[in-house]
Amino acid sequence: MSLLYEGKAKRIFSTEQPGVLRVEYKDEVTAGNGAKKDYIEGKGRLNNQITSRIFNFIKARGIESHFIEQTSETEQLVKSVDIIPLEVVVRNIAAGSITKRLGFEKGHEFESPLVEFFYKNDNLNDPLITEDHIQLLHLASEEDIELLKNAAKAINAVLVQLMDEMELRLVDFKIEFGRNKSGQIILADEISPDTCRIWDKYSDTNFDKDVYREDTGSIIETYQTFLNKLEEL
Amino acid sequence: MSLLYEGKAKRIFSTEQPGVLRVEYKDEVTAGNGAKKDYIEGKGRLNNQITSRIFNFIKARGIESHFIEQTSETEQLVKSVDIIPLEVVVRNIAAGSITKRLGFEKGHEFESPLVEFFYKNDNLNDPLITEDHIQLLHLASEEDIELLKNAAKAINAVLVQLMDEMELRLVDFKIEFGRNKSGQIILADEISPDTCRIWDKYSDTNFDKDVYREDTGSIIETYQTFLNKLEEL
Repeated sequence: MSLLYEGKAKRIFSTEQPGVLRVEYKDEVTAGNGAKKDYIEGKGRLNNQITSRIFNFIKARGIESHFIEQTSETEQLVKSVDIIPLEVVVRNIAAGSITKRLGFEKGHEFESPLVEFFYKNDNLNDPLITEDHIQLLHLASEEDIELLKNAAKAINAVLVQLMDEMELRLVDFKIEFGRNKSGQIILADEISPDTCRIWDKYSDTNFDKDVYREDTGSIIETYQTFLNKLEEL
Repeated sequence: MSLLYEGKAKRIFSTEQPGVLRVEYKDEVTAGNGAKKDYIEGKGRLNNQITSRIFNFIKARGIESHFIEQTSETEQLVKSVDIIPLEVVVRNIAAGSITKRLGFEKGHEFESPLVEFFYKNDNLNDPLITEDHIQLLHLASEEDIELLKNAAKAINAVLVQLMDEMELRLVDFKIEFGRNKSGQIILADEISPDTCRIWDKYSDTNFDKDVYREDTGSIIETYQTFLNKLEEL
């Protein structure tokens, strides 16, 4: 079981089973592309449990992902895929970068969910890219882009409903996709308060990494409360 | 004849004829969103003549614009339109911002012409926007965006051929469109070495504002040589 990749929040290991990887969620948290960085005990455990629950929840609603099963507090097994170097962002409500970039007021509700693509490239600082750029960079074909957008919107619809049942609002989230050996595109990476922006339905309380980004609360308490709400469903 | 608008390179006046405006090309030149700024005598005269010739050239090839006629060395009459706040950029070869933004090598020839949209908004620094952003900002409908892209590509094809006849390569250019009173979208603004990036076919010589941006030559000599080439056609 050798380490294949280490990112900001996860380590990925090979397993004895071909095509199956082990993901270990780390206790590290970063923001601003690594400008802010901390070790927060218990964060890996929370994100692993939350992501596992969410992947199971959306699977029950017909959305496949790379997720196989949770195997320990901090670990899960996933199918091996080649990650497409795109951050696919879905926004229901304006917050974060889009308020600065395009001048939308924080809290502005989009008429329809907005899908944005960012090029995963540390040297270029993960820039926004258009569908034409994606094709010219040979990251995905026109058909694949259509598939990614439709998949992102379908995942959004399921997550919005989930959050609504938890009396939360799904503001925005980032997902990544990969290709398996037969070339099929499937949802990968994670879905957690690290990758979503989630607001309380009746107050301005955040249930996401903004409490860390903006120093407005404890990441452990926030993520634990979110996990409790998920478990109560 | 009152001044309606003064931009970095032009002044726009009303005329006695309804729906007709007078454009006066100024001797000012700016770069880097106004970070670099100079008064260069003769520049307005050159750009007015070049733009007039190019609008006439593309008109003869079936592409309408707001241009009516050149009326003096520094002036032209145009049809009044409401400018759509989009900079429509067409790129045949990678140069300038896209090399930094997406990592394309300077000189990389795109497989097909790339159309990009930037939101004309000084406060936001004219950011790149996607077709979905354009719709959510109510700048243009899906059909209008398709029309803008197709028009931009058609204009590119005509300009590429023109430059080729002048033994030049059209690297990229920026155009703007407006809506007339009946809502029809037509090409507006200008097409000149201020708004195009043009390279010599056999050397690295620039025939555009990069000589000013990069301090590599005289803007007057460069634009005059370009005008001479246009007149020799």
